[in-house]
Amino acid sequence: MAMTDSEINQYMIAALAEAKKAAAIGEVPIGAVVVHDQQIIGRGYNLRETTQDATQHAEILAIQAACRQLGTWRLEDCSLFVTLEPCPMCAGTMINARIATCYFGATDPKAGVAGTFYNLLEDTRFNHQVAVVPGIQAIASAALLQDFFRAIRAKRKAAKQAGQTDRNQV
Amino acid sequence: MAMTDSEINQYMIAALAEAKKAAAIGEVPIGAVVVHDQQIIGRGYNLRETTQDATQHAEILAIQAACRQLGTWRLEDCSLFVTLEPCPMCAGTMINARIATCYFGATDPKAGVAGTFYNLLEDTRFNHQVAVVPGIQAIASAALLQDFFRAIRAKRKAAKQAGQTDRNQV
Repeated sequence: MAMTDSEINQYMIAALAEAKKAAAIGEVPIGAVVVHDQQIIGRGYNLRETTQDATQHAEILAIQAACRQLGTWRLEDCSLFVTLEPCPMCAGTMINARIATCYFGATDPKAGVAGTFYNLLEDTRFNHQVAVVPGIQAIASAALLQDFFRAIRAKRKAAKQAGQTDRNQV
Repeated sequence: MAMTDSEINQYMIAALAEAKKAAAIGEVPIGAVVVHDQQIIGRGYNLRETTQDATQHAEILAIQAACRQLGTWRLEDCSLFVTLEPCPMCAGTMINARIATCYFGATDPKAGVAGTFYNLLEDTRFNHQVAVVPGIQAIASAALLQDFFRAIRAKRKAAKQAGQTDRNQV
């Protein structure tokens, strides 16, 4: 279903709200929502460290919630909004779930496969293609990640300096 | 850890046993096991139709079980055995979980990305590479799938013929 720019931005803002929930518990802040018939039917945020489960990315959790909501693994008329370009696992899950369109925020220079290393989603050799729309709320999405990693580096630096002070006092 | 051919075959036979559990409940027969320190620490078989969840492939379930078993998302010293070449979702999950080696049975001409369309697992641009060993118990793995689809076609043909007979009797 065609969406207006305003709707697209609102759904990505909902995905950003999910990402902020991840940041609040010390997880890399990535969030996702699945939309069907102008309704958000699945939400998810990165829970890899909390669960110690490699599969618990935002997109997977949002897709699983959407499958439960619709009672089917076929999400053919659904759009997925995610704050960061998907990795191979998440792109593959979107193909398997037959998501119609993937809107993403920031590009991922380390693992992105919706245009960066590959464009798996639009590869016509697979039995389903997911249309890709990059760059939605890209600055806000990237800023969330930058702030998160900057805070981690500052914490590590402070811990290191505290350690050096301790050693000087011995 | 280096394995003997005999060990490799035994683990794939364990994956085939998982695949047979899928076939028994009408799921496409694909099975997987994760091995750590000469122990199977995760098993899984395809449950997509039963669960109506697009993520429930054999490899995902075996990896999730292994993460629970070891209490970590890092499966760095683990090998994964799967009866069919992985799809993008499952290959991506192996990269994310830092699986050391993926042994697979039959190649998948429709969705394989461990050599067929791509070799995602050994792409050095990602932050982890999974060594790929294809062709383990390949004939048995392919035969399971062929038998499954042959039975489905026969069932459909019988249903169609029964339908025609019904119409002739009307």
